[in-house]
Formats: sequence, C-alpha cells, structure tokens
Amino acid sequence: MNFLEERIVKDGIVKEGNVLKVDSFLNHQMDIGLFDQMGAEFRRRFAEKEITKILTIEASGIGIACVVAQHFHVPVVFAKKSKSINIEGEMYIAEVESFTHKCKNQVIVSKKFLLPEDKVLIIDDFLANGCALQGLISIVQEAGASIEGIGIAIEKGFQPGGRTIRNLGFHLESLAIVESMDAETGTVRFAES
Amino acid sequence: MNFLEERIVKDGIVKEGNVLKVDSFLNHQMDIGLFDQMGAEFRRRFAEKEITKILTIEASGIGIACVVAQHFHVPVVFAKKSKSINIEGEMYIAEVESFTHKCKNQVIVSKKFLLPEDKVLIIDDFLANGCALQGLISIVQEAGASIEGIGIAIEKGFQPGGRTIRNLGFHLESLAIVESMDAETGTVRFAES
Repeated sequence: MNFLEERIVKDGIVKEGNVLKVDSFLNHQMDIGLFDQMGAEFRRRFAEKEITKILTIEASGIGIACVVAQHFHVPVVFAKKSKSINIEGEMYIAEVESFTHKCKNQVIVSKKFLLPEDKVLIIDDFLANGCALQGLISIVQEAGASIEGIGIAIEKGFQPGGRTIRNLGFHLESLAIVESMDAETGTVRFAES
Repeated sequence: MNFLEERIVKDGIVKEGNVLKVDSFLNHQMDIGLFDQMGAEFRRRFAEKEITKILTIEASGIGIACVVAQHFHVPVVFAKKSKSINIEGEMYIAEVESFTHKCKNQVIVSKKFLLPEDKVLIIDDFLANGCALQGLISIVQEAGASIEGIGIAIEKGFQPGGRTIRNLGFHLESLAIVESMDAETGTVRFAES
C-alpha cells in the first residue's frame, strides 16, 4: 500500500451504498502535508510531461490542485459550478451530472485562462462515474489545449469512469484505486498497482 | 505598496459598481507563488499566535488557505455552502448572505473538525460586507474554539465588513485594503498600511 491507501485504511469510513468518507483528511478537513506528498507523487508519475497549467473543479479539487501545483510551478484554474455575475466575457461551458448532489451543473471556465498552447494537467479528488472529469476534458478540448495527464486522488475502480477515460487514451493516474468496499466490516480493497 | 497591492494594480480590473476583478491571479486562475508569499506574510503578522487549524469557505478561499497552511503546519477546514448528502452527523450551520450571488446560503462545518481546544485562523480571499466572515466567526464561537486571527487577501475598505469585525475586537489583517476605485480611469487607491 502507498501512503494514500494507508491513510484511507486508517481514517476513511465505509458507508452503505459504496460511499467512502474521507472528510477528515481530503475533502472537508484537509491534511496539507498529505497533499504535498500527493504533489510529489504526481510530479514523479508525470515526470516526462511538460505542464503549463493545472485545471480542477470546485470545491474539493481546489486544495489538492493548489498544493500539487507547487511541484509543477504552474498556475491553477478551477472550473466553477454555477454562473457567477463576476464571470463575464467568453466562457467555456460543459454540462456535468453530480453523483453526490444528484443534480446537473454547468461547469464554467473563462476563455482567458485556457489557451491553445496550454499543456494541461487535470487534478481532482475523486473519480467515480467520471462526469465531472468528462466536463473538464471537453472544456480543455474546446480550448484547443492539450491534456497531458489526469491526476486523481481516489478512483472508485468498480465504477466506469476510470475505464472510460483510459479507453479514450488519456494518461490517467489515480493514487488509490478502490476495487471494493464492505460497509459491514469497514474494509477497503485496492487494485494492485 | 506591498506585493499584493502591486499585483492588483498590475492585473486587477476595476469595473462599474465597485467591482474589482482579480480572476487572473486570485479567484479563478490562481497564482500559487503569490499565495505562498501571502502565507509568509500572514505567518509574520500572526507570528505570536499559536494556531491549530485554518478555517475558510468554499470555493475561492480554499486555494489560499491551503497554501497559507503550509506556513502554519496545520490542517485546513473549509465551510461548505450547501447541504451535501456526504456530510452527516452533527454540523455547525450559519446563514450568510452572498454579495456576489445575491442570495442566502447556509454555511456548514462538521462538528468533528472544530473542537473547543482549537485555536483558529480564519482565511478568505475577500472581505466586503463581511457576511461570510460573520458566518465563519459564529461557527467557531458555537464550537467553543478561539479565533486567534483573521487573514484576508483583499478588503474593500469602503464597505463596512472590516470596521465591524475590528470593532468586535478581532485581530484582522488584510493584505490589501482598497480605499477607493475608479472604473473610468481603472485606478485603485489603497489605505495606508
């Protein structure tokens, strides 16, 4: 097990309905030292890639992306989930479905901050059905920028998002791939790395 | 002028209605090197304070808070703006009004992540009317934790939030206090530090 898998075993809580709660260190309370380790690991896994920008999505992707960005020395852009009166000018917009909130959201990035010459690393905390990620991918493609890689903290390997994204040929790296969970025993099994 | 004021003059855009757009470096695209400078400056301004936790609010506070936290070596908790089915158990809830979105939000923090013994530094990107900040303050007070300081990137000094918070006796440090803006000339005037 790597450092993130160990942390999930130690502090993650398995709930009925394939819910993995990691809110004590990942997406409500955030362990910044852990995020820094994740940044070093993503830098290692994408060592050969030249990255000019990190793209993530609000809210829980932002913290990870900002700490990871320190290992790549690039700015972070976060996609917003609803139209704000403070965003104006031209925007890239994608429709995404949220598994957690059971609703559809518009995901928005200002065109000023994604240019055709950008080499983008997409970072997010969770990958399950892949809806949010597909929205981010479509936005980068609409901008004419290249997707150099996708870095995910926790992938639910038993849901189709990761397979779909890999089948599309993207370089996807998930630090922990959960193969199965058992709410009764509270155990998590990871895919072999 | 300090480093943040200089950056606002260089890259901020003044719009009608006292809107200051800083989305190229602060709250849509994020300059992580700048956030790191902000972290060092907050550490200096709160040098005498023992901090155990940083509290912020989604979404644009999260990036700053996470990079600032590296200078304090503490976890970050971000308050969520709407009820998620993934938050359960007991929660602290405050009502806040959003100036930007012209609506009321519930701001929520899980009780697990704010304890009476916590010494909290609140971090956010903007302070104008102070509604969001008052919500965070009420949550910390409900938890019985102490507020050791409040660090803001940009305060709109011509709006009442900062004065109210200082009058209440809180140690509030804003890295840039905008005294006035002129949309016609595009100029920003800062309060003397």
